[in-house]
This record gives sequence, structure tokens and C-alpha cells, in this order.
Amino acid sequence: MQKIKKVLIANRGEIALRIMRSLKEMGIKTVAVFSEADRQSPHVQYADEAVCIGPAPSSSSYLNSSKIIETALKLHADAIHPGYGFLSENENFARQVEESGLIFIGPSANSIKIMGSKLAAKDAASAYNIPMVPGTNKPVTDINEALRVTSEIGYPVLIKASAGGGGKGMRIVEKPEEFAEQLERASSEAKSAFGDGSVFIEKYIASPKHIEVQILGDQHGNVIHLFERECSIQRRYQKVVEEAPSPVLNHEKRMAIGEAAVNVAKSCNYYGAGTVEFIVDEKLNFYFLEMNTRLQVEHPVTEMITGIDLVKEQINIAEGNTLSFKQEDISIRGHAIELRVYAEDPANNFLPDIGKLVTYKRPQGPGIRVDDGFEESMDIPVFYDPMIAKLITYGSTRTEAIQRMKRAISEYKISGIMTTLPFGSYVMDHEEFISGRFDTHFVKKYFSPENLKVNLDKETEEIAMAFAGNFFTEKNNNPYAGEIHNASGNSIWKRRYS
Amino acid sequence: MQKIKKVLIANRGEIALRIMRSLKEMGIKTVAVFSEADRQSPHVQYADEAVCIGPAPSSSSYLNSSKIIETALKLHADAIHPGYGFLSENENFARQVEESGLIFIGPSANSIKIMGSKLAAKDAASAYNIPMVPGTNKPVTDINEALRVTSEIGYPVLIKASAGGGGKGMRIVEKPEEFAEQLERASSEAKSAFGDGSVFIEKYIASPKHIEVQILGDQHGNVIHLFERECSIQRRYQKVVEEAPSPVLNHEKRMAIGEAAVNVAKSCNYYGAGTVEFIVDEKLNFYFLEMNTRLQVEHPVTEMITGIDLVKEQINIAEGNTLSFKQEDISIRGHAIELRVYAEDPANNFLPDIGKLVTYKRPQGPGIRVDDGFEESMDIPVFYDPMIAKLITYGSTRTEAIQRMKRAISEYKISGIMTTLPFGSYVMDHEEFISGRFDTHFVKKYFSPENLKVNLDKETEEIAMAFAGNFFTEKNNNPYAGEIHNASGNSIWKRRYS
Repeated sequence: MQKIKKVLIANRGEIALRIMRSLKEMGIKTVAVFSEADRQSPHVQYADEAVCIGPAPSSSSYLNSSKIIETALKLHADAIHPGYGFLSENENFARQVEESGLIFIGPSANSIKIMGSKLAAKDAASAYNIPMVPGTNKPVTDINEALRVTSEIGYPVLIKASAGGGGKGMRIVEKPEEFAEQLERASSEAKSAFGDGSVFIEKYIASPKHIEVQILGDQHGNVIHLFERECSIQRRYQKVVEEAPSPVLNHEKRMAIGEAAVNVAKSCNYYGAGTVEFIVDEKLNFYFLEMNTRLQVEHPVTEMITGIDLVKEQINIAEGNTLSFKQEDISIRGHAIELRVYAEDPANNFLPDIGKLVTYKRPQGPGIRVDDGFEESMDIPVFYDPMIAKLITYGSTRTEAIQRMKRAISEYKISGIMTTLPFGSYVMDHEEFISGRFDTHFVKKYFSPENLKVNLDKETEEIAMAFAGNFFTEKNNNPYAGEIHNASGNSIWKRRYS
Repeated sequence: MQKIKKVLIANRGEIALRIMRSLKEMGIKTVAVFSEADRQSPHVQYADEAVCIGPAPSSSSYLNSSKIIETALKLHADAIHPGYGFLSENENFARQVEESGLIFIGPSANSIKIMGSKLAAKDAASAYNIPMVPGTNKPVTDINEALRVTSEIGYPVLIKASAGGGGKGMRIVEKPEEFAEQLERASSEAKSAFGDGSVFIEKYIASPKHIEVQILGDQHGNVIHLFERECSIQRRYQKVVEEAPSPVLNHEKRMAIGEAAVNVAKSCNYYGAGTVEFIVDEKLNFYFLEMNTRLQVEHPVTEMITGIDLVKEQINIAEGNTLSFKQEDISIRGHAIELRVYAEDPANNFLPDIGKLVTYKRPQGPGIRVDDGFEESMDIPVFYDPMIAKLITYGSTRTEAIQRMKRAISEYKISGIMTTLPFGSYVMDHEEFISGRFDTHFVKKYFSPENLKVNLDKETEEIAMAFAGNFFTEKNNNPYAGEIHNASGNSIWKRRYS
């Protein structure tokens, strides 16, 4: 066991800041690294020491593993926390850190390696009888063999290119009579796209939910889970709204998926914080998808419902201590929802909308947490993920967490760029979200930019009023009172003052 | 049962804003009232409607009950929430509100009346055998009777003027032989100060802790408690640091004091949210002090450990519903601490330090809640209580809540006025506070302004560095790097950059 006294955080933005906050509470010194584009970032100011490691492009700075390790050694840090993204799931980096005599705050390089390969991960997990999406799990070439497997799995099935990605070489087959033709097409599409025509067959899950389980393991073989997160609201295959617990799992299912996640972690001798992702069908059957061997963006919802600081547990584990609690010590209280506030335009296919945070006022009050890495008047750099903030709300019930999210969104004042805030409002008001039944197709099925209600903030209201012409104030010149009429003379906005 | 659709909040600042936030989450419209001094206040901007009710002095605005009721009626509000202070514990106001056909969000006028009089409160509570500080409970004039009572109570005792206040006419008597003389002195001091020489005798509690219990009652006779708050850290007889739960009560004592509080509430047929205050001696004997018939300033610590929004419960009760939960549904998770951030100078006997909030940046991140009513560049008005904000931290343990408070204080950037933030740091670092043994004499016993470590924020550091002369930067002109030496050449502050 080694007491950690100083940590270099090999990351930027909100996650660097969030990690430093926990370290500060633990009395551990912090070293920030930053690119030239992040010179003015709050994470740089927050750290006890800060080092510029290179130009803006990640390959020259946040991915420059040798520069980062060299900096940690030079400033006598004991450990490196990789955050998420960048080098966090790079087995070579984890190995280099350890070989240089520093502690890597994360799992072993070997665990990263196993879970980094879908095939190796499934191989490891299969020893624990973890449910996986039924399929061939290896390339099929023989049409008769393929038909036999498919009839075992049951239609519909998905034909997927082995070398694939981005939907290329992927076919849904509904009936046996279509199978041969679709296999042929998928294979030739794969061949022309990837130079490799081999394909897999997998059961097609029509209405998939993405549910993941937070786990913690120590270096002494103890692994526990901290329940699940529901992350099905996605756009461009990326999560945008997450919550904990899942609104659809009952106690039995919750314990079963939790146990499966613990077993996946055990299958690769995992230690540290990690997340086991599952795909869940309409009947709540769950299938292992992959394991993320790092802290997740959406970890705060788990912190809110369990009361546990996951970063502190990561440090505790990295120091070689046993877990601070047992499975039976952990329970769920209330409900938490996270909305990722991205600098992107929901009305324009969620494309990034980089620019300056002209106005930036955070919501406040009970049950609200904002994790961010910007201040008013800063620019959102073009080089990195355009996430501005994570807005997290807590409620004693899911309904309260939703109501609080709506309230928080209405208090959040951002101008200068478009954000996912109005999309968040849309989701919170949507019957399908409220019901909990939604799946990963939510955006495709229901969302269109016309649905977006613009959240008029007070400033916008005032500007609107000022330009409305028929704006009136009664007495005392109060700027917060007045009424706006539309062309037909109907009141469209009113704020009284007497 | 009447559904509340619109509420007038007869208050200002942080509590008006905090109440409106819960109302907004419930879909209830809000009406703010404000004095001419509060025209630019966030609570005015936040409300759906806002009405100026008069000039700055409270007597002309926030205490103008008929103007407030008239405004509520005019804007078709269903109910009035009084917040704390101002008209919140005024039985006549509660009665007028009800008589005008509006709902008073609080207890009945009669409950307020009973608990507003110390004697009536003790009379009512005595039917439930609530422990009270042993004493005469009525004026004594006969010296022999007084001596007899005192020997029953046991020394030391306190002689208190019946008409007293502010420590005048108050004497501690340690031994019987001093009694006659001290009684004489106290009585004549009382006579000259208040025109009434009658005195009480009460057991003197040398090391008193102030512990209070949050209760909730509905209009159907159900009363429950939400555990206790420890509020012994006080300056000028006013609370400044509060926490929940108490660090010294065990489960048995906790349940006993909770039950006593429920009985006090029952003794006056209480409904709404209320707080029963107790004085607790070194052996953890508790004695009923008084009941506050309103929402308390420090209610957020209870919300943090129970997960319950007390304002929403107030609305639920005011609508005539039964309580949302039973006693057995409520449990404590973790620990919460509140620091009242006052615009006052701890180094100058905590005298108000009114002025402009030149810099005002709130702390962020896990486990932190800030309830305030100001924004950067606003003035703290001279007319009202100089509280700027309530800084509340939550932790899974008391230790974590303390560490988080220290971290939050260090992140809080306020310039332009002096605040209680450095005092908060002092308390969090003090062994007596950490031990949980402290009593209401904490400030008097331990605090002196020389103890205050100034919390150098980054800005101050930069200024200091700029003036330090021997400030250096290595490369890239980074303003966050450098070192300051004192006159002897020793490094007194360092921030590296490589």
C-alpha cells in the first residue's frame, strides 16, 4: 500500500476539474497538464501546478504519453489519473506509467487489453456464463451453416461485417427466404468497403435499451456493483441523457444484471472503477456488450443515488486498499438524471456549434449539480469534444428528478452558441421518456427540430420586449414587467407589475 | 383539499428564490413582492409576476401585511408563503391571510400564538411530559422559597429577569452562600433595566449544545420528525454553522429527542413544517427551549440527509393532503453541513460589512449546494439581514462533509466585502469542531481574529505575485506560475510550470 500524495491528471475540461475537486478534499496535490488552446481553462487554474505539454491537437498534447509521464516524474507526482477518453483506455500507456514507477489510477494494462477487444472480452466473459446476444461470434462463409445458425437464433437477425463499423455491411433479415440474398449483399458490401467480405450473424434486437452497470474492484479480488445507469437516449450513437436507476428494471432484474457485471469484471481480474454495458430487449433480457475500463462521463448519476464519490474510491483502490464497503452496504436512494450540455445545434442534426460563451449562468438550488470546465466569455475550442457541461439533477423520485431537470434547464443561461438544453427540455416533456419505455431509437423515432420549444430566458424576453414595440410598463420603470402582443393583438407573453 | 396554483412569496433574497424553485418544479406560478431596494434582486427576476410593495425599510414593505394580502388577492394567488423572519411567525398575519380567503403556508394562527409565548409553550408541552430546564417557571419573590427550589434543582443556577433579554439581569450562582446577594442584585438590575424586578430561577447548563428537530405535521393530526440539526456554533447569539445529524447523539437519544419534538408539535395541534429547539447538556440530557413555527434558515441540511424537499411538503400540507410518508419511511443518509456566508467581518466582532459584491463566484461540483439571492456586482442592501448565501455540503460521512466544506470555501470567490468564509475555514479545522464536542460557547472560548488564516484565492495570489517583485515565470508567460519569497529569501508561495 502506497499513500498517494500528488496526482497528475492527464485530461482537460470538466473531468480534470471534477477529479481535482475530490483530490483536493483528500488533501492530495494536483498537477494539471494543458495544451496551448487550454491555457485559460479552469482546470489549469484549479491545479496546484500546471504544465503546458504542447499544441492544441490532442496527438501533440493530451495523447503525448511520454511527455505526460516525463512531466509526472519531473514534478514528483505519485500517480496519473487518465480521466475518460484520450489515454484512459490505452493499455500501452497504462503499462508505461506503471513501468516508470508511477501508479496508473485505473485497471491493469492486461484488463484494458482484454476488454479492449470485443472478441477477447466475450471469450473471457463466457467462462462466467454471461448472456450475450445470440449469434455466430465468428465469421460465416457457408450459406447452409449460416441458415442453420439463424434458424436456431430466430428471426429477425442482423448480418454484420467482421471488419465493419458505422453501419456499413450491416443488414437486417426478417425472413428465411430473404437470407441468402442479404448475406450475399452484406458480404460484397463489406468486401468493397473493408477489403474483407467475412460477416457475423447476430440476433436483431428491435427495441434495444442501453443499460450499463457501475462496478468497483480492488486489487485483492473484491468486486461490487453500484447498480445500473440507463443511457438509451443517444444522438449520433452518443449518449446525451442518462439516469440512475433504470426506470424499468425490477429488483430481481437489477440484482441479476449487477451480478453479471461483477462477473464480467472478475473474468479479467478487474480492479478500479469500470462500467459493464448491456443491451436490453423489450422483455428485459440483457446481453453483454462491452466493458469500459475507466470512469464514465455519466458517473455522477451513480454518485447521486448512492452517496459515494467514485473518484475517491478510485484513489483508495489505486493505493492498494480494500474496498471501503461491501455490496450490502450500498443502496439506492432517489433518482438522478444527467443531461450532457453540448455546444451543438439540435435543430441542425446535432452538429457542433463552436464559439464563445457570451452568457454563461449556471442553475442553482436544491438537487442540482453542474460539472463543467468553462466560465462566461470563454471560447469552446474546436479541437476537442464540444461538451460544455453535465447538468445533473437529483430527486426523491424519478418524477421529481425530471421536474428539477426542467427547472434547471430553464435557469441555465447560455448565449453565443446553440446547445442541447432545448433538446433536454423536449426529452423531459416527452411521454415516451416519462414512461421509461424509450429505447436507443428515441431520437430517430420521435425527434424533429420543429419539436423544439425555445426556452426564452429572461434576457431574451427583455430583448423581445424591447423590440416588441407594444411593450408596456406600468410604474416605477420596472424592466421585468410588461406584455407582448402578436400581430393579431393577442397577448403572447405577460409579466405583471402593479 | 384545494390545489394550489399560484403562490405569493412574502419574503426576499435566498429564501424567496429557494421557495420559488420548488414551486416552479411543482408547476405552481409565483408572485414576488419586493421593496424599492430590491428592484434588481434575483428573486424579482425569477418570479412569474413581481410587485413593488414599498420603500426599503421592512415596516414599509416586507412587514406591510395588508399591502401583501391585497397584492395576493389582486393577482389571484391562492396562497402566501411567508418564508422565515418578517411576517412568518406573526399570528395576526396568519389569521388575516386565512380570513381573506387565502391559504397561509404555515401552521394555524393558534399554533403560532401558543408557541410564540414561552410560558404558553411550556404549559402546552408539559401535558406531554417534555423535559424542560429545571426551574421555577414563574417569578420568585420569597428568598426562602427561592432557596428551597434552588437546592432541589442543584447548583449552579441561573437567576433570570422575567422581563429580560440580552443577558441583562442574569446571574450565575455557584454556591448557596452567594444566593441571597445575587438574587438581590439580579432583581434590582432587572428593576432598573425593565421596570420589573421579578426573576426566575433556572438550572445553569455550563456547556450547552443547541440541538433542534425538524418536524412535519398535516391537518389530519399526523406528525413526524426528520431528525435533528446541531446548531451550536453561534456568534452574537445567532447560528453560523449548522449540521445534520448531530455528531454526538446515538440512535436511542436521537429517537427520544425526535419523539419529544413530535409531542411538542402535537401539544399545539401543529401542522406544516416546524422546528423544536432543545438545549442539551454534557450528559446529553435535553430540555425543550422553544418551537419555531416556520421553515428554518438551516433546513437544507435536513433536506440533504433525508432527500426530502421541505418546501414541497409544506405545499402538500397546505393543500390539505396527508403527509407523503410515515416516520419509518424516513432515514438518514450521510452528513450535511451549512455555513452561513454573511457580509460581516469576523476579525471585527462579526459586524456587518455591507458593500458591493465586486467578485462573486460560487463553488461547484459534487456534494455542494449554494442557496443565495445575489449575483456578482450587486450591492448587499443595508436594510436587511446581511446574509449573502448558505453554503451547504454533503458527504457520505461527517469527515467528507467537512473536507468538502473546506474545498468549497476555497473555491468561493468573494471580493469587495468581508465575509464569514474564513471563519468557516477556522471552524472546519478546529479540533473541538472536528470532535463534535463543541457547545454554544465555541466562539467565545476559542475564536480570536488572529486565528483567521486568510484564504488566498487565485486572484489575490496573482496580485500578491505581481507586487512581490521577485515573481518569476518560466516560459510561455503563464500567469499561474511563479514563486514568492519573503524578505529572508524563503519561498512562501510557489506554483510551478515547466
